[in-house]
Amino acid sequence: MNESGVFSGLGRLFDPQTIAVVGASNDPKKPGYSILRSLLRFSGDVFPVNANNPEICGIDAYVSLNAIGKRIDLVILAIPSRSVVQTLYEAEIDIGGCLVIASGFNETGGEGGRRQVELKELCRQRGIRVIGPNTAGFMNPSRNLFATFVAGTEVLKAGNVGVVSQSGAISMVFSFLAHQSHLGISLAVGLGNMMNLAHDDVVSYLAEDDQTDVILLYAEGITRGRELFNAVRNAVPRKPVVVLPVGKSDIAEFASAHTGNLIGSYALMKSALEQAGAIVVDSVTEAIDAATVLTKCRLAANSKPGLGVVTAQAGAGMIIMDKLGENNVDVPTLCPETIDSLKQLLPPLTYIDNPVDTGRPSGTFGDVLCSVAGDEQIDAVLVFALEEPDAIAPIELMAEVKTRTDVPILFGTVGLDSTSIEQAFCRWSDYGVPAFAAPERLATAAAALACDAMRRAALESSATDANSGFARRSLEIDGPGDEAQAKEILRGLGFSTPRSVVCSNQDNVRRAFEKLSLPVVLKVLDASIIHKTEVDGVHVDISTVEQLEVALAAIDGIGDSREGRSYLVEEMANPGIDLILGAKNDPVFGPTVLLGLGGTAVEALGDVVLRLAPVSRLEAGSMLSDLRCAELLDGWRGADPIDKNALIEGLVCLSHLIDEHPVISVIDLNPVRVNAGGAIVLDAYIECAGPVLPASGS
Amino acid sequence: MNESGVFSGLGRLFDPQTIAVVGASNDPKKPGYSILRSLLRFSGDVFPVNANNPEICGIDAYVSLNAIGKRIDLVILAIPSRSVVQTLYEAEIDIGGCLVIASGFNETGGEGGRRQVELKELCRQRGIRVIGPNTAGFMNPSRNLFATFVAGTEVLKAGNVGVVSQSGAISMVFSFLAHQSHLGISLAVGLGNMMNLAHDDVVSYLAEDDQTDVILLYAEGITRGRELFNAVRNAVPRKPVVVLPVGKSDIAEFASAHTGNLIGSYALMKSALEQAGAIVVDSVTEAIDAATVLTKCRLAANSKPGLGVVTAQAGAGMIIMDKLGENNVDVPTLCPETIDSLKQLLPPLTYIDNPVDTGRPSGTFGDVLCSVAGDEQIDAVLVFALEEPDAIAPIELMAEVKTRTDVPILFGTVGLDSTSIEQAFCRWSDYGVPAFAAPERLATAAAALACDAMRRAALESSATDANSGFARRSLEIDGPGDEAQAKEILRGLGFSTPRSVVCSNQDNVRRAFEKLSLPVVLKVLDASIIHKTEVDGVHVDISTVEQLEVALAAIDGIGDSREGRSYLVEEMANPGIDLILGAKNDPVFGPTVLLGLGGTAVEALGDVVLRLAPVSRLEAGSMLSDLRCAELLDGWRGADPIDKNALIEGLVCLSHLIDEHPVISVIDLNPVRVNAGGAIVLDAYIECAGPVLPASGS
Repeated sequence: MNESGVFSGLGRLFDPQTIAVVGASNDPKKPGYSILRSLLRFSGDVFPVNANNPEICGIDAYVSLNAIGKRIDLVILAIPSRSVVQTLYEAEIDIGGCLVIASGFNETGGEGGRRQVELKELCRQRGIRVIGPNTAGFMNPSRNLFATFVAGTEVLKAGNVGVVSQSGAISMVFSFLAHQSHLGISLAVGLGNMMNLAHDDVVSYLAEDDQTDVILLYAEGITRGRELFNAVRNAVPRKPVVVLPVGKSDIAEFASAHTGNLIGSYALMKSALEQAGAIVVDSVTEAIDAATVLTKCRLAANSKPGLGVVTAQAGAGMIIMDKLGENNVDVPTLCPETIDSLKQLLPPLTYIDNPVDTGRPSGTFGDVLCSVAGDEQIDAVLVFALEEPDAIAPIELMAEVKTRTDVPILFGTVGLDSTSIEQAFCRWSDYGVPAFAAPERLATAAAALACDAMRRAALESSATDANSGFARRSLEIDGPGDEAQAKEILRGLGFSTPRSVVCSNQDNVRRAFEKLSLPVVLKVLDASIIHKTEVDGVHVDISTVEQLEVALAAIDGIGDSREGRSYLVEEMANPGIDLILGAKNDPVFGPTVLLGLGGTAVEALGDVVLRLAPVSRLEAGSMLSDLRCAELLDGWRGADPIDKNALIEGLVCLSHLIDEHPVISVIDLNPVRVNAGGAIVLDAYIECAGPVLPASGS
Repeated sequence: MNESGVFSGLGRLFDPQTIAVVGASNDPKKPGYSILRSLLRFSGDVFPVNANNPEICGIDAYVSLNAIGKRIDLVILAIPSRSVVQTLYEAEIDIGGCLVIASGFNETGGEGGRRQVELKELCRQRGIRVIGPNTAGFMNPSRNLFATFVAGTEVLKAGNVGVVSQSGAISMVFSFLAHQSHLGISLAVGLGNMMNLAHDDVVSYLAEDDQTDVILLYAEGITRGRELFNAVRNAVPRKPVVVLPVGKSDIAEFASAHTGNLIGSYALMKSALEQAGAIVVDSVTEAIDAATVLTKCRLAANSKPGLGVVTAQAGAGMIIMDKLGENNVDVPTLCPETIDSLKQLLPPLTYIDNPVDTGRPSGTFGDVLCSVAGDEQIDAVLVFALEEPDAIAPIELMAEVKTRTDVPILFGTVGLDSTSIEQAFCRWSDYGVPAFAAPERLATAAAALACDAMRRAALESSATDANSGFARRSLEIDGPGDEAQAKEILRGLGFSTPRSVVCSNQDNVRRAFEKLSLPVVLKVLDASIIHKTEVDGVHVDISTVEQLEVALAAIDGIGDSREGRSYLVEEMANPGIDLILGAKNDPVFGPTVLLGLGGTAVEALGDVVLRLAPVSRLEAGSMLSDLRCAELLDGWRGADPIDKNALIEGLVCLSHLIDEHPVISVIDLNPVRVNAGGAIVLDAYIECAGPVLPASGS
């Protein structure tokens, strides 16, 4: 899958010295005109290529790429899709990389799909990286390089935000809104069909890029999920990665028509990105607000950063606290010394434990901010104050406060005088104060700042923890087997299962019934029956011989063939909570592990947590706490807390099993009964893909 | 509770001819200065009251309210909290209403609480309505009336948005952001402590106010929940109500310190507001965006309005579709005729089923919009296009399109030239085109437009449906009773319960065991034991005499006293899904009814839907579909769909029971087993408050 080996680095492509534009045109209706016009300020050399016209936009043109007679770092193909392959095929010069604007490739299927296959193969042979096809291009403002047909982009400032977007339009949306928020762009790329250049490649490039401090990512359909996971995980220790994924709703068909990529599971994509350390946001505005704060400050890795909240109006504080709470951000009660100092600074009857409500701001407002920022539990401070010209001078305030504390301070305000507000936002940006124009935007941005610190803390702890505890075991998988075989494998790995007897005939069942503790469960054993309950193949709570005979008759009545079929008699487990533990080899993200609440009714609720495998013990622990029903595990309504350790061991073990044995496609332990005494696997199913060893048991 | 009877209408207060400002001051540090300054442009008469100064801000001042010698419509008390009661007590003139700015009342507890009690009693005697105490005031721009100490508000334009906010600051935040979105204000009120003037009063006032087309509401702690429910339900048929409630997080203590009101259940508040027809939003920005669209257009009541989505860039379309999907908004496939006409207008290979992706806009873009708007399934159209000066002229486009169709068209755009964008938003606002500066904001606003149509459809259907089906029954409640008594009441109302026998001793139990179909359940019957399972008082699946004896022994071992205790022997119900049906007399919202997924594990997930009682059959039906596990009821994994009708009947019946019998405080049917055959109550608990009739059975 990963073809990076064939290609050289992306520096020549994104930071070129020479650019050729094939299809450059004097006709304002053509993209070859728009692109050349955008390139007129480029700091390197631009070579228009046009067979019919010796001069384009005042620049000498060449009849072909070969006619240029030089190595070209970036070839922009602004020609129809049907001519792209032929043009590249004929080019004999050294090409650093291409940008293919035209649509009419994978996103249309049919002929377009075939065209993309040809182009991909040609580029593989020649080692050419392609941005696109089917994209608006890219922008590198520090080089005055605007390789796009979208007009007006040359006003974008160079800066420290790197934008990676599947959609060319969203790379523009991100860049334009960043510009409005006084942010500059290091590189903004629309990837289009991602033929041989995908999100992960650009994330890895930006991770190394000194100009980039924050990476903004937009993702529709990811095809190289594991590579993206790795790229993000490698980038996050150096710079924050903010991701806007889409696909919560059923938009798969539209997505495929957009960039020709299938949209996978949104839940898995979100989980994987978060596990890799990214901040996953829900809207373009949230992404820009996260960039606004993270371009200016970053907290140290911290599993529970503390935020201080100071408001001049308590109503805004309510909205802020509500949003912070939703995002599980800690707003700790301030230290007694801080509270004492606040009491000196504020009139009586204000709320000062954190949040700190000052009431109408007075001359002490800056001192209040510094006092809260100075509290040892506080890692960043949120401030909200209405624009009240006679009560607060916010520009001067922040200029002064910034000289008195290094703790990041985020400002939120709403006002009526748009000129003075705009001026304040400009000045704050210069001072490095992240500022926001609505209370919830302030809170959501602060949550992104805290989230980044928490994700890095999790990555750091997991890295330390990764190799502890799990003893690698070699395993001979003999599948697809039946439940008894699956349980034998699991016992070998340290899982508990109920006491049981496999019986090949009814008499053996009756003998086993005598020996086991009652009540028992009687199940059909048949590797070809996956959903045993649905065919009446599972009979629980058997305490009497009569019940046993009824169950035997029912099982013998299942289906037509009874060849190779036997019975499993098993003791009933103690009461507890039924969970699902699973593992799967996902086509996009590779080995994954799953924890969910079990039981038919509950499966409809989909309380499920996913991670890419293998997981550390800490990551497994986070799966437990990320369940919506997490409270249940801590001793619900007076019950004893469950044995979380057993569950964590099981998840770590499953994750290594699926990761180290590519032949396994699915593991489904459903249910696993957990209680204070441990975790016991009540049913198990293991499915293998591809060639497997012959089953030893049957 | 509802004191409206004592008071005259709010017109004199919000739309006064004469205003007195007690505490008016020449000292710029005092609120009495700021408020008088804000009132200088007021179109009526202003009378400063100051005992020491004959002239305030150039206006003749009076030594007391009585010295004015006229009826005063609005008395603004800009004096410390300790002087408020005395000042009002001494006033002998006719007062239309008061605004009390000072804090230091209920929100501080203690002395402040006592002050508020005194003030409330005085105002009750005198029939004076009070805005506040503890508020920033209110604004009525059409009268140039800015009754607030916040400076600069006089630039607010008069318009059709009415703002009701518990927090004075949020009334400002709403008004300021509305102003930035080119909206005008009819009335904006900060209610503060809501001593005798609450949300519901102002909502009812605005519902009648001809200048107001949209009501924006901010709510922290509601004390008059039922009154607000009624006020909103009465307003919605005439104008949309958009509500931002807070309280998802644990911010109760801060809320109480803010306006002295306790914060109730967020879930119940949200459910009640939605049931009343309000659009509940999650942020200030969403509230303003909803107002932006709803001030310009409103759809006819419609249970499933269809939206068309037209994008010039498919990436933005992905984000829009994702948000619409999250909000359950219908984006129907267009009619074949529309698709045919789009094929004539657009190049091949664009996606045109809906969403319609035009690719880079051409001269046909307006025709595409009109074609989609003309589709019979389409009630409103969303358009998103990047600002591309060489591809699209958005102002002219919408001016033209508006002349060609009456279907509402919402525009979203993002651009780089802030001057031209701001100009476009201004012009669009003049034309009545709602416009938004980010793709998800366009989608969320469109969702609000659709939501309003759906809520009204639900209200209209429920109104028709309300009196059908439920036969009112008089009921003599003899509680608090035990499970058998509760089930008898329920059977009388038409609920099914399992065949059972109440037994006063062990021998009777053994006889009942012989007669009933096996297996049975044996339960302890004791009105003093509420949680029977937790004391081992419920024994299920009893098929043998041995099992019965074990169960009897266990039950006899419970607790100390066995006086008045008996046994309930009951047949086991058929398998199905266990739900909770409940009803409760809530202190804020009155009678409520609840539906939730049952079972210990599931209760931790809190899949629960609430409504105010009584509910119509349609409202009860919406409870089923609002469950997160709704799929489960429709036949999960091949099971037969459950008998929804039985469940709906049960909910309607419970809702009338709690509504018509105030003596009942709680009804808890948990679980109710539902399957294709019906709904059967497996356990029931009814609690009565206050004086009840003596129990007939014990």
